[in-house]
Amino acid sequence: RSQVAAFLDRPAVTRFILAVILFNAVILGLETSRPVMAAAGGIILLLDRLCLAIFIVELALKLFALGGRFFRSGWNLFDLAVVGVALLPASGGLSVLRALRVLRVLRVISIAPSLRRVVEGFLRALPGMGSVLLLTLILFYVSAVMATKLYGASFPDRFGDLGATALTLFQVMTLEGWADAVVRPVMEVYPYSWIFFISFILVTTFAVINLLVGLVVNAMQE
Amino acid sequence: RSQVAAFLDRPAVTRFILAVILFNAVILGLETSRPVMAAAGGIILLLDRLCLAIFIVELALKLFALGGRFFRSGWNLFDLAVVGVALLPASGGLSVLRALRVLRVLRVISIAPSLRRVVEGFLRALPGMGSVLLLTLILFYVSAVMATKLYGASFPDRFGDLGATALTLFQVMTLEGWADAVVRPVMEVYPYSWIFFISFILVTTFAVINLLVGLVVNAMQE
Amino acid sequence: RSQVAAFLDRPAVTRFILAVILFNAVILGLETSRPVMAAAGGIILLLDRLCLAIFIVELALKLFALGGRFFRSGWNLFDLAVVGVALLPASGGLSVLRALRVLRVLRVISIAPSLRRVVEGFLRALPGMGSVLLLTLILFYVSAVMATKLYGASFPDRFGDLGATALTLFQVMTLEGWADAVVRPVMEVYPYSWIFFISFILVTTFAVINLLVGLVVNAMQE
Amino acid sequence: RSQVAAFLDRPAVTRFILAVILFNAVILGLETSRPVMAAAGGIILLLDRLCLAIFIVELALKLFALGGRFFRSGWNLFDLAVVGVALLPASGGLSVLRALRVLRVLRVISIAPSLRRVVEGFLRALPGMGSVLLLTLILFYVSAVMATKLYGASFPDRFGDLGATALTLFQVMTLEGWADAVVRPVMEVYPYSWIFFISFILVTTFAVINLLVGLVVNAMQE
Ligand code: NA
Ligand code: NA
Repeated sequence: RSQVAAFLDRPAVTRFILAVILFNAVILGLETSRPVMAAAGGIILLLDRLCLAIFIVELALKLFALGGRFFRSGWNLFDLAVVGVALLPASGGLSVLRALRVLRVLRVISIAPSLRRVVEGFLRALPGMGSVLLLTLILFYVSAVMATKLYGASFPDRFGDLGATALTLFQVMTLEGWADAVVRPVMEVYPYSWIFFISFILVTTFAVINLLVGLVVNAMQE
Repeated sequence: RSQVAAFLDRPAVTRFILAVILFNAVILGLETSRPVMAAAGGIILLLDRLCLAIFIVELALKLFALGGRFFRSGWNLFDLAVVGVALLPASGGLSVLRALRVLRVLRVISIAPSLRRVVEGFLRALPGMGSVLLLTLILFYVSAVMATKLYGASFPDRFGDLGATALTLFQVMTLEGWADAVVRPVMEVYPYSWIFFISFILVTTFAVINLLVGLVVNAMQE
Repeated sequence: RSQVAAFLDRPAVTRFILAVILFNAVILGLETSRPVMAAAGGIILLLDRLCLAIFIVELALKLFALGGRFFRSGWNLFDLAVVGVALLPASGGLSVLRALRVLRVLRVISIAPSLRRVVEGFLRALPGMGSVLLLTLILFYVSAVMATKLYGASFPDRFGDLGATALTLFQVMTLEGWADAVVRPVMEVYPYSWIFFISFILVTTFAVINLLVGLVVNAMQE
Repeated sequence: RSQVAAFLDRPAVTRFILAVILFNAVILGLETSRPVMAAAGGIILLLDRLCLAIFIVELALKLFALGGRFFRSGWNLFDLAVVGVALLPASGGLSVLRALRVLRVLRVISIAPSLRRVVEGFLRALPGMGSVLLLTLILFYVSAVMATKLYGASFPDRFGDLGATALTLFQVMTLEGWADAVVRPVMEVYPYSWIFFISFILVTTFAVINLLVGLVVNAMQE
């Protein structure tokens, strides 16, 4: 077992796996091209399967080498998930599963220590943002319920149910077409609705700014 | 009295109130769904009233326990306002009041110390931004008067009166459709109007950036 | 002379001038309202002139009190300019001069020390941004000449001459309608034009970000 | 040789070259104006060639003075490239090469030490952003392959191949028309596609914010 673990840790092996991931990324990219698939679809799919086979062997070896400890590392679970998605049956309407296979390319992150550190930094920043994020979510939910009750009857497309309203409010929050496409039409029916929307924009923008400030200050302290 | 106060401070009671708020949030969300209301509208409205009754009892107990001190805490006044809005008569055109009932969900903030601290941090950041905000407001007012005088006659929809102009300038400030929807049409009548609008964008963007910088620096000093 | 200077510095006088400015701001705002002007246009214009007269008297007294030193303060020159604009003849097509009269309201800034400090802070931040701003301007100019040469013939509205191109590139820089309104139509004639526009967006965004970072760091050091 | 080097380093010579660059910038700007070219096209092109000749002589002298060391400075290579582009034959469809001649104006940067320092600061900031940029690129590539596979068949214009998808996703990332122009039409065919797009927006925005935070922290440490 420890010999297998040592083998997997050898730089040459790691570099080989990295090369396979990058090669697989190119293959998966080529699969999106209709002319390429028409000309050499067979060999491309074959090469994709070969890459997948290598990943499965690698993961199996790692599982054998580490035993139960394998599941203690989040990155191992991540590798298992993005490789395993290819083994799920993708028949009929489940073209989403087929598209998810490309997530395999994200293994570059789990194998390259510098990228791993960036993601881990991102994840470590999340709890510090927890309260602000939760507050934003609560405000978002309350605003969505209010907007649905107020404008849902007159604007079923944009405010018909909580889902539609959430999308519209997210659009307003990103300031995309908020005035001419969303607020002005609503104001023609409800002239005072600008109070709701301007407040929503100011509060959510202020929340996002506070998130940003919090991230800068946190990063500073480290 | 002190026994009532102690009772309200017990973790079990606080957790119960929190659970009622969250449950009420779900109920208020379900109220926006037409099929759900058609199927079980009666019970949903009943549960909503039950939640409201619990809040009223809790607030009454707190008022009895604290006496005049109740009104010294901003959060108690906040709770009183968001719960009290449900007691206002919401007949006829006042559907806004009915929609405002969902503000009750914001009680999560007043009950969860971590969210409370975030909001208190927001509010404490405001005075430090006071001068920049006031300056932005003055510039905004002056720009609105100018734009109304200059473009109001030719573009009554966008610059017809101070209110319409304020909305349009806020839209320009958020960079939403400023060029193709606002400035280019105006430039066809007033070819030099870009001077006004580009200045307005540069000055307000610079003001917002200074606000941001000020927030970062303030947060740093704490 | 020193008695006049002392009189002008008295808190009561300063507060009176501040009140006149704010009152004038309201009057100038009311001038934009057609119904108000129809009902009480005469008295509104009279009150506006009264405010103007008070400002002129105040400036004349200050000029008498300070003599040549009057012109050494930027704020005095600012007051002179925004008040003086009302004395220029605004006949015929010069409705712009009439609109500029509202700049008088900006005197609130020169009279309120806290607002003065904010503006002075803005101005002091400018030289530190000098090099980045100059670089951005150079890149902007070079991009404008290039885009005019490349796309001017096919898209005279957006890239017909340096002025039109500058406006379009500023629009692209603010990310307003850059894709669907500007780049996609150009790409239908020049398929590789995305190289120019994406580079332009990346470089100018990076320049703006560096400006922001520079401002934060500068503000920190103080 | 050292005499030539000393001559080139003399402030008067540097200032003369700077003046030629700025004069050339104006000339190149005038070349975009049709009326100016109709009236004085001959002399404008002549002056442009004169500027070019001066730059070539200056570069030749510098090459002679420094010998092989000339190529060790990135700025010399930059000067060589932006001046040399004018010597390439620009016949027929190669109007791009003619437009690239304006890059010569960027020599202001290589000649002005303060601008040079800004650019060098930009370039020095890049490696620190390396990992985050690489991660963003990987996420972008994976998202582009996925979107092409999922939506390419139904939306060939926006997601037909990797290139089209990359442009569309960049548009979504800049929040330009993401909702009404991109996501809503896709959602009419694939109702759950919002999961992909909202995730993409949140992740890329978070990556950009982390880039910004990293830049602020890096700049602070210096
Ligand atoms: Na935008
Ligand atoms: Na936009």
